[in-house]
Amino acid sequence: MTVSTVVPEQVPTVPASTVPRLPLYLRGLLRLAELHESTVSSERLAELAGVNAATVRKDLSYLGVGGRRGVGYDVAHLISTTGRQLRLSPETPILIVGAGHLGRALARFPGFSGDGFRVVGLFDIAPAKVGQRFAGLVVRHVSEIEQAVTGTDGAIGVITTPASAAQTAAGGLVAAGVGAILNFAPLSLAVPEGVRLRDVDVSVELQILAYQRISAAGRT
Amino acid sequence: MTVSTVVPEQVPTVPASTVPRLPLYLRGLLRLAELHESTVSSERLAELAGVNAATVRKDLSYLGVGGRRGVGYDVAHLISTTGRQLRLSPETPILIVGAGHLGRALARFPGFSGDGFRVVGLFDIAPAKVGQRFAGLVVRHVSEIEQAVTGTDGAIGVITTPASAAQTAAGGLVAAGVGAILNFAPLSLAVPEGVRLRDVDVSVELQILAYQRISAAGRT
Repeated sequence: MTVSTVVPEQVPTVPASTVPRLPLYLRGLLRLAELHESTVSSERLAELAGVNAATVRKDLSYLGVGGRRGVGYDVAHLISTTGRQLRLSPETPILIVGAGHLGRALARFPGFSGDGFRVVGLFDIAPAKVGQRFAGLVVRHVSEIEQAVTGTDGAIGVITTPASAAQTAAGGLVAAGVGAILNFAPLSLAVPEGVRLRDVDVSVELQILAYQRISAAGRT
Repeated sequence: MTVSTVVPEQVPTVPASTVPRLPLYLRGLLRLAELHESTVSSERLAELAGVNAATVRKDLSYLGVGGRRGVGYDVAHLISTTGRQLRLSPETPILIVGAGHLGRALARFPGFSGDGFRVVGLFDIAPAKVGQRFAGLVVRHVSEIEQAVTGTDGAIGVITTPASAAQTAAGGLVAAGVGAILNFAPLSLAVPEGVRLRDVDVSVELQILAYQRISAAGRT
């Protein structure tokens, strides 16, 4: 009865018994996202969450989410909906370190300024870049990261510096209290335990595409 | 004896018995890359390739690649080295469709113009963008993709259009004979069987980072 009147951006009321299962769904969905699976059946999600498929379908219907027959549910949409239902901070602040081409592109990227995220800071060390304005943001010096993070909750740092500057950028973010980092620089960063780190390595993605033919030839 | 004189960009001579194992290593390495694992032990790679660990270490030493004790081998570097050894086209051509901020950033990104890749074309449909010059490339109309691909081998298309234009871009690439696509647009593309497709969904990466705390709370 709450479902039929769901308005986008509003959070529907769900039965109290559904709520404790949402983190279980979210965990399974994040695992699927990591495997680059874009859709999921209620059976698969049920298995991942350790509940039965009918319960999954009912719970998701409370969230106002429908699956497509023969295709299933959209993983990214479900993550977003489930997360919102769990009353996460409505806008997770994003700090981009590295105001070069990639950093500026991401500052304007809809995926970085929608779905509950908001770019709140763009940082660089180059005096020539500090003070410039991109995408409605004034580039600040990296020494101001801590000040930008103060008072925010669950900020995510995005590193778009050259590889040579990425470890320093990560250190600055961690020192400022940022607990999650998305790294676009092509190297493995060292971060303290407890800091969540994910890498987007576009070179590796290209290599996977380029070499798949050859590795298929070696398949036995 | 060939190993000690390896010069960067040169391909060492390896024993004939090693060559048939290289595609097996490559297949295992690509799987690790897909799982975002940045390092691998010789034991793990041996298991993935179905050979023994001593053979892996010997084969990789022929390639001039060393592992770090307690850390293992760098997956991205091994993919690159193994692929080069298999005498892939020395420069895989990259075509970027979508000359907006992200496309232009990637056109200049070192990871897209190194490691055996070269951006050979930047395409858009907007008359205002066609003819402009970025990163040494003149933006061409998407109708010229086919002409750009003719005579190349194993080109990879990169889609950096808005979501609304991405399926059309994919269709244009496929029609031009491009068999591999890296998609940055936030939607699931439909491509014919045989076309290799990978998605880089930065929103999903952010969601994974943002919601990991919550999903951990639900862990039983």
